[in-house]
Amino acid sequence: MSDVRSQQGRVRRGPAGVDAGEALARLRETAPLVQCITNAVVVNFTANALLAAGAAPVMADVPGEAAECARFASALLVNLGTPGAEQRAAMVEAVAAAAEAGTPWVLDPVGVGALTLRTGFARELLAHRPAVIRGNASEVLALAGAGLGGRGVDSADDVEQARAVAVALARDTGAVVAVSGAVDLVTDGRQVVRVPGGSALLTRVTGGGCALGATVASFVAASAADATPALTGAVAAHALHAAASERAEAAASGPGGFAVAFLDALAAVQPQDLAERALPLEAVAEAEPVR
Amino acid sequence: MSDVRSQQGRVRRGPAGVDAGEALARLRETAPLVQCITNAVVVNFTANALLAAGAAPVMADVPGEAAECARFASALLVNLGTPGAEQRAAMVEAVAAAAEAGTPWVLDPVGVGALTLRTGFARELLAHRPAVIRGNASEVLALAGAGLGGRGVDSADDVEQARAVAVALARDTGAVVAVSGAVDLVTDGRQVVRVPGGSALLTRVTGGGCALGATVASFVAASAADATPALTGAVAAHALHAAASERAEAAASGPGGFAVAFLDALAAVQPQDLAERALPLEAVAEAEPVR
Amino acid sequence: MSDVRSQQGRVRRGPAGVDAGEALARLRETAPLVQCITNAVVVNFTANALLAAGAAPVMADVPGEAAECARFASALLVNLGTPGAEQRAAMVEAVAAAAEAGTPWVLDPVGVGALTLRTGFARELLAHRPAVIRGNASEVLALAGAGLGGRGVDSADDVEQARAVAVALARDTGAVVAVSGAVDLVTDGRQVVRVPGGSALLTRVTGGGCALGATVASFVAASAADATPALTGAVAAHALHAAASERAEAAASGPGGFAVAFLDALAAVQPQDLAERALPLEAVAEAEPVR
Repeated sequence: MSDVRSQQGRVRRGPAGVDAGEALARLRETAPLVQCITNAVVVNFTANALLAAGAAPVMADVPGEAAECARFASALLVNLGTPGAEQRAAMVEAVAAAAEAGTPWVLDPVGVGALTLRTGFARELLAHRPAVIRGNASEVLALAGAGLGGRGVDSADDVEQARAVAVALARDTGAVVAVSGAVDLVTDGRQVVRVPGGSALLTRVTGGGCALGATVASFVAASAADATPALTGAVAAHALHAAASERAEAAASGPGGFAVAFLDALAAVQPQDLAERALPLEAVAEAEPVR
Repeated sequence: MSDVRSQQGRVRRGPAGVDAGEALARLRETAPLVQCITNAVVVNFTANALLAAGAAPVMADVPGEAAECARFASALLVNLGTPGAEQRAAMVEAVAAAAEAGTPWVLDPVGVGALTLRTGFARELLAHRPAVIRGNASEVLALAGAGLGGRGVDSADDVEQARAVAVALARDTGAVVAVSGAVDLVTDGRQVVRVPGGSALLTRVTGGGCALGATVASFVAASAADATPALTGAVAAHALHAAASERAEAAASGPGGFAVAFLDALAAVQPQDLAERALPLEAVAEAEPVR
Repeated sequence: MSDVRSQQGRVRRGPAGVDAGEALARLRETAPLVQCITNAVVVNFTANALLAAGAAPVMADVPGEAAECARFASALLVNLGTPGAEQRAAMVEAVAAAAEAGTPWVLDPVGVGALTLRTGFARELLAHRPAVIRGNASEVLALAGAGLGGRGVDSADDVEQARAVAVALARDTGAVVAVSGAVDLVTDGRQVVRVPGGSALLTRVTGGGCALGATVASFVAASAADATPALTGAVAAHALHAAASERAEAAASGPGGFAVAFLDALAAVQPQDLAERALPLEAVAEAEPVR
């Protein structure tokens, strides 16, 4: 997608960047079917976000159905927000089927680090090679913890602090890693893209991050013809959410209205709106110490 | 309710029709208690739609409670959207209790045809004689598939194509069958009613069809004194959703606002608004080849 | 907090009262983390209500995680709306851990009295000493039923009729008991506070009462330094919901818009708005016959 890696410096900005507008146009043309195995808190908002953006949701999360669905879905989201035993079983069968069928899947490690059971479970799922891992800084650090030698998680972790860990996690797992924050950071271990923008009101409504995981899955599917579908898709999804939340903030007078306006905005944002956003690729030197 | 069946022609339009306005007036007077065993994606929207329309929801879906509730509820909805093992057990005990207690129940076969487990499960539930089966064309065709000789399901199935299968399914099961589409079709196997109207925005919000299943249940309960409660109730419920979605589309600027305005409109639509909608009964000849 | 109990009369109004404004200021400063084990119908609305009010939700409801979470959470809500087997197990481990760790917890006995399984289960949970029990009159009467000699539940029960039972239940359990109605009633068995206001539209939207249980938990946590955290917190939470629903009613044209405006209003209400509401403490004579 670009060849801007510097042989000397650690990082330099290249002229190349992700074209989120083109990715959105492909999403609207293809309306990918996105299977979501997600938590009860956000399942309605997530389905509505996918529909608003232009994708088609299918929330099949029952053992005996989850694998069958993962074989014909365009992409799969696994979100650990409320991981009951039956849902964990559905996740295991779905990611195994997805890996076998070539369905790209996204892992959202909600609450990993804070709660022990799901931390171990999330690490087990990594064996099935997610296309993208998307979380906040604490979650990404905690998920990486074991492989990186058990470094602790600080609740004050921010995205920049998480950069080196995200790059290392991407290299270890082969997944694109996306870290949400005031400026989002997305990396495949060789390149990093920063996605600025968004709205502070996203922190006053539940489900913004969780819906983003589903949007990432939809864009990865829609970017299948791209040289780097997971990186392009993850960046474009973050750009769409940033643009939509900015519009929603302008329209809303509180968190209730913001959630409604955000869904309206996901539908209203056009490819040309995203094409205007600069999303340059920043190379990570191969020798860069990442831990 | 009407005697418009032709002895010669296959179908003719009669002067008689369903009075959806009267049905809504009865719903508002009686506020029937509707038990919903439904999927996690739409359970909130469904409860709010029932409250907005004038009914009272009770979402008891736990084994050990579901049968008890089905005995005192005015009607029961069983929706297969996320059929976990515990919920399937609750569905089985609830429909058995409903059948025994004379509580009318509605089956919404979400995803039947696309997913194997729920397709078999839905067919098992038919033995407990639902009052109404409500789905889209693909779901109704798939549900009928076995009994009708395994005809395949085409994703391009539309309501008119599904007409003959819906009539046959109604005759086989004794249920009223309602097929959602650009024009909805409702039949008890002897008569067909088409319900036009609605809004394309319903396809951009999750839960419109699922909530309709609950509204159907509430109207069947409210129409208990009618000669054909299931047919009248199902038609009136579809007419209310069509009217409410038209109002909501006029008020909304996107899918988020549409969902909010739709709930407002379910509460705002008055019996006289529905009385204006022509819903003629169209007879199906007994000898009509239905397959 | 006050010493207005009369030695002679059954009850007199004292000059002292709950300062809900101060309680809200503390909530906004401390942003307590509130674990919710609640029903699928309202889980999204509850999380959004907590975020809007100024608290932080964590909806961990899975066995193996629920106890761990209850140890570090600021407060815990247990709501019996859809008590599946796995959720019941999570509730048992969470309330035991909360009691051990000193985390205050709130019991919302949704549907107790109407459904047998949850009625027995709710009474078992009382052994773990909730800080607050919050429900409508029928639920509170039913919950008290066994301990108070099995008095029946009348669907016409209103808050005043429930007063004596609420006082007795508070004395028996050591919990503050809050009864929702046209005027809410909160008691710790020695004092009673009435919270007027609110909106009839709350009865047309699902989740208002359930979200109130979570808000109560957040205020009890925020009032930890108070002499009577559970009483002060419960009263202040009811006052916030009353004020927010009045604002929302003024802004809304139906139940859909009301729910959105209610979340906006939970965020918009300021401590000074609540400080204006008179919430006098009314003493209950020790010798008052409470049954």
